[in-house]
Amino acid sequence: MSTAAALLDDEVSVRELAAEIFEALRTATTDGVGITRRSYGAGESAALDIIEAKARVFGLQVERDAGANLVATLAGSDPGLPFVACGSHLDSVPKGGNFDGAAGVVAGLIVLAGFKARGIKLRRSLKLYGLRGEESARFGKAYVGSSALFGRLTAADLAMKADDRDTTLGDCLRDVGAAVDRIAAGEPLLVRETIAGWLELHIEQGPVLVARGLPIGIVTGIRGNIRHRQIECVGAAGHSGAVPRWLRHDAMFATAELISHLDRHWRTMLERGHDLVLTVGMAGTDPGEHSIARIPGRFCFSFELRSHGKLTLEAFYDLFLSECRLVGEDRGVEFKFDNRVDSAPAVMAAAWVQKLKAMARDLGLPDEEIPSGAGHDAAIFAGEGIPTAMIFIRNRNGSHNPDEAMDLADFVAGIAVMRRALQEAAA
Amino acid sequence: MSTAAALLDDEVSVRELAAEIFEALRTATTDGVGITRRSYGAGESAALDIIEAKARVFGLQVERDAGANLVATLAGSDPGLPFVACGSHLDSVPKGGNFDGAAGVVAGLIVLAGFKARGIKLRRSLKLYGLRGEESARFGKAYVGSSALFGRLTAADLAMKADDRDTTLGDCLRDVGAAVDRIAAGEPLLVRETIAGWLELHIEQGPVLVARGLPIGIVTGIRGNIRHRQIECVGAAGHSGAVPRWLRHDAMFATAELISHLDRHWRTMLERGHDLVLTVGMAGTDPGEHSIARIPGRFCFSFELRSHGKLTLEAFYDLFLSECRLVGEDRGVEFKFDNRVDSAPAVMAAAWVQKLKAMARDLGLPDEEIPSGAGHDAAIFAGEGIPTAMIFIRNRNGSHNPDEAMDLADFVAGIAVMRRALQEAAA
Repeated sequence: MSTAAALLDDEVSVRELAAEIFEALRTATTDGVGITRRSYGAGESAALDIIEAKARVFGLQVERDAGANLVATLAGSDPGLPFVACGSHLDSVPKGGNFDGAAGVVAGLIVLAGFKARGIKLRRSLKLYGLRGEESARFGKAYVGSSALFGRLTAADLAMKADDRDTTLGDCLRDVGAAVDRIAAGEPLLVRETIAGWLELHIEQGPVLVARGLPIGIVTGIRGNIRHRQIECVGAAGHSGAVPRWLRHDAMFATAELISHLDRHWRTMLERGHDLVLTVGMAGTDPGEHSIARIPGRFCFSFELRSHGKLTLEAFYDLFLSECRLVGEDRGVEFKFDNRVDSAPAVMAAAWVQKLKAMARDLGLPDEEIPSGAGHDAAIFAGEGIPTAMIFIRNRNGSHNPDEAMDLADFVAGIAVMRRALQEAAA
Repeated sequence: MSTAAALLDDEVSVRELAAEIFEALRTATTDGVGITRRSYGAGESAALDIIEAKARVFGLQVERDAGANLVATLAGSDPGLPFVACGSHLDSVPKGGNFDGAAGVVAGLIVLAGFKARGIKLRRSLKLYGLRGEESARFGKAYVGSSALFGRLTAADLAMKADDRDTTLGDCLRDVGAAVDRIAAGEPLLVRETIAGWLELHIEQGPVLVARGLPIGIVTGIRGNIRHRQIECVGAAGHSGAVPRWLRHDAMFATAELISHLDRHWRTMLERGHDLVLTVGMAGTDPGEHSIARIPGRFCFSFELRSHGKLTLEAFYDLFLSECRLVGEDRGVEFKFDNRVDSAPAVMAAAWVQKLKAMARDLGLPDEEIPSGAGHDAAIFAGEGIPTAMIFIRNRNGSHNPDEAMDLADFVAGIAVMRRALQEAAA
């Protein structure tokens, strides 16, 4: 075995290599608090460049696809066969953590590089995707990079404004070199039939694996969601001292009441056994006109529902609209909605879930199943009918914050399962 | 009677002069939406300059006092007697209206100029104050200009940060030429015994005079308030899809629940006959770290209670603290408070209220009493034991917004009452 092969097979060396790549990503995209790799922004592009450079060093073929994603290929002996894809996303929320997304790309890179270094012969090609635009923080829409691959973006999506309002998704796509006209026309950038499967490794973004003492988990399904980036509650501004309660149309109090009602409905849904989470991640009075002595005439907030069940999502969304009407009538305010954005729930391929569990057992690892509360690009691949699977890695402190903490020992365990799965799938 | 005298006595001419001065103020301090004259900022100083120039033209003595307020004097024949003061403030909230505060200064200017032009002989001097820093929008504290006159500011007050965080009240006072060391030492800038009374004309900031069809109202009392500029609800950020409801410490949902509880307590207090208004004027998640898919770990909001009753203020404030504790315990969040800022409720001088009503009747105007929901510098003068009165002018669309609308006919009616009151008080 060559030195390079040893470097990529031995657990200690894999860990060192992973640490080096993560450190390079962190250094390039630090914001002083966490890391920031905005979708189709400079930080994300820097991350793609770092992974691309490493992939080249490891002897993989690299290219940017028509969606401006990074693709690194280990060619198989039978190029006519559908290829097996792996990877994840390289963007992040603002002040996010270094592992959310990047872990899956680094894992795929290490596995493919290992096969290359050891000269493993595979019939099918293996492709590693470093996807862009998975996080919704910048444009209010998630999975942009993977959606574009399958022609699932519309002209309306491309017109979406960034959170800083000064650019659109379409302009940002063009800036990084994507084929915007093809994307706008809904043309698939990838022929669905050329892909035999999608395997994504990702940190768990919730506390379950930590709570259960498991280094990895095999994902069974992914929550879908319904979102509004901005709902505007419009009431009437007024002097805080001079307008009595019965004459007020306070947008802040109306929204607080709405949220409290929804919170109660949420609890009821959970008690009835439905899977549901509800989040108002961004909310506030208008900094351009608010003051301590002014009744807020306007309060804006984001809205997000997630569930494994499509019917649960629709049922709660109806309840939400009805509460907006009731609170609006009661308080003389109006709730105005931007476009509703949906992501469908997804189920992982049962056969692959069973195989991953068996491989984990073979490796002396626990083989526990775990549902994914968070959404992933894998849901888009699954939605296209592509056999899809995910491996979760234990991670402390959640994600979407600078404190996410993945132990590299757990990461190496996940890579071991991924290596076996890709080798078998491409054999 | 000279032309100047005619100009200042005839209703039509007073209206034209008022319109001209208001227009000068508006033009100098427009922000494109409304007007902005930030406390101890450039817009406020511009307004003082405009009024000072006019006062000079009208032959009044002008100066800036040790608090950097504008003072225009019409000297009486017996300078040993305490003087009669009138005026109001010249600052505004951001994107506010042109009349809130300025109306009282313009009214006083027109009255004093009229006395001067007509050569009216008065024993007491009359002083017009163009006060600074009445609005709390910038520093979270109201009545700064009048409080400084009586040595009621502390070093802690002077250390208060502006809403844009880049300066302090003390620095701003120094920049406009105030005697900051004397103010910081709590030294009165004005000897209380030298003031015989304070008369303030102001637009009504609520809808009562409009609803009752009254051009003016005689104020009986002024609500006090308890405020926090910023309360911080601290929970735990997390991924919106991956953290189940029972593991969340959502600062947004906790604050929504808190506000909903307080709203219910407020309704109960009103039903029991207490005077109270409750406002959360500024509120929001942190734009530096929030996102649609992140559970807010932090939500900041302002808090303001107002009442004519000191006991009502204290009782509701206790309830508020207790709700913060209960919601905090229930949801695993903590509410952190900045300094509590108080303004005491004030009662207008009964004898002066009766005289103003009689004068209004004499002039063929309605003589209705009205309580003031909003706070005014008059409350500070009253708090010093100085006989204090206020005249409210009808005003549509409330205040603290660009749409406030005072009819100049109503303003002229208020000036007529003010003219009689000042003439009698200084006679």
